[in-house]
Amino acid sequence: MFAFRASLGKTEKSGRIMRVLGLDPGLRNLGWGVIEARGAGLRHIANGTCRTGSGELATRLLELHEQLSAVVARWAPDEAAVEKTFVNRDAAGTLKLGQARAIALLVPAQAGLPVGEYAPNAVKKAVVGAGHAEKSQIAHMLALQFPGVKPDSADAADALAVALAHHFHRRTGARYTAALEAAQAKAARP
Amino acid sequence: MFAFRASLGKTEKSGRIMRVLGLDPGLRNLGWGVIEARGAGLRHIANGTCRTGSGELATRLLELHEQLSAVVARWAPDEAAVEKTFVNRDAAGTLKLGQARAIALLVPAQAGLPVGEYAPNAVKKAVVGAGHAEKSQIAHMLALQFPGVKPDSADAADALAVALAHHFHRRTGARYTAALEAAQAKAARP
Repeated sequence: MFAFRASLGKTEKSGRIMRVLGLDPGLRNLGWGVIEARGAGLRHIANGTCRTGSGELATRLLELHEQLSAVVARWAPDEAAVEKTFVNRDAAGTLKLGQARAIALLVPAQAGLPVGEYAPNAVKKAVVGAGHAEKSQIAHMLALQFPGVKPDSADAADALAVALAHHFHRRTGARYTAALEAAQAKAARP
Repeated sequence: MFAFRASLGKTEKSGRIMRVLGLDPGLRNLGWGVIEARGAGLRHIANGTCRTGSGELATRLLELHEQLSAVVARWAPDEAAVEKTFVNRDAAGTLKLGQARAIALLVPAQAGLPVGEYAPNAVKKAVVGAGHAEKSQIAHMLALQFPGVKPDSADAADALAVALAHHFHRRTGARYTAALEAAQAKAARP
């Protein structure tokens, strides 16, 4: 579907640049945020909210798909991370959330991106250090990490937090892999 | 996404031909069935099941999207109808169902088809005449309506029932509109 990827000269600069798209799905408001890691540096690229009105469900899902596809095409992320929310007020609300999440998972997959899923507690733990952190602590951490950035909405702020959690998760994973390989190499020495 | 539509010579024969795609969404098994109405006649065109394995959710949704898109491209329906299921064992199951339903609604919408939604009781009532009909009665009606047709799966059978319900619903609506217009024309006579 999205064979083309916006060329932003990323490959010309460094092989270690990694763009992460974070997503906080919702049928009415789907928050998104793009961050970029370059070596030890981390910067905010863009954030926003895909919104749908109160029309027919199929039309709203189509609108969501088109808006999010445009985001992926424009900001060309390398990986995506989606918030894994379960709780909701009732079955009808859970069903709606599931429908919005399907679009959030489908669009990056159609662009060939790996898609990670993170439970809200995992996001909070990665970003603030505690699984039961308040929303205000998340906002504080985002402000520290990305000075001057004003998230478009509460959902866009959550999406940036999800992107950040994915970044930390990847970095920890990469360090672990490097340490493991070093230990194995040492053990293999005669 | 699907600007092309399989040309099956439909327009050459009659303007009143109408193909309906019925869908019974599920993440593991998504049933589909295509029926065609031509004047008073009604015939079975095809039915089947889109299946996904036990991989990552994003990958499964992508598979579902690709399989269902191929069905729409191949059988070129004019309208679609999706079963509107709410009940499920738990929140996680409802979320999964919502994700599969999103694909069932999105794919026809991407092809520009109007998409109707029918609650299971509405389907039973339209097909069998009673909202609390047994599965076996649905199977009996399908066998009467489409002799010799063996549905690919229980989900494909449900999908054919949804298509049938949509057809009956449209026909009743068309008759009502015609009767209304006739009455208005009569009333308008001097």
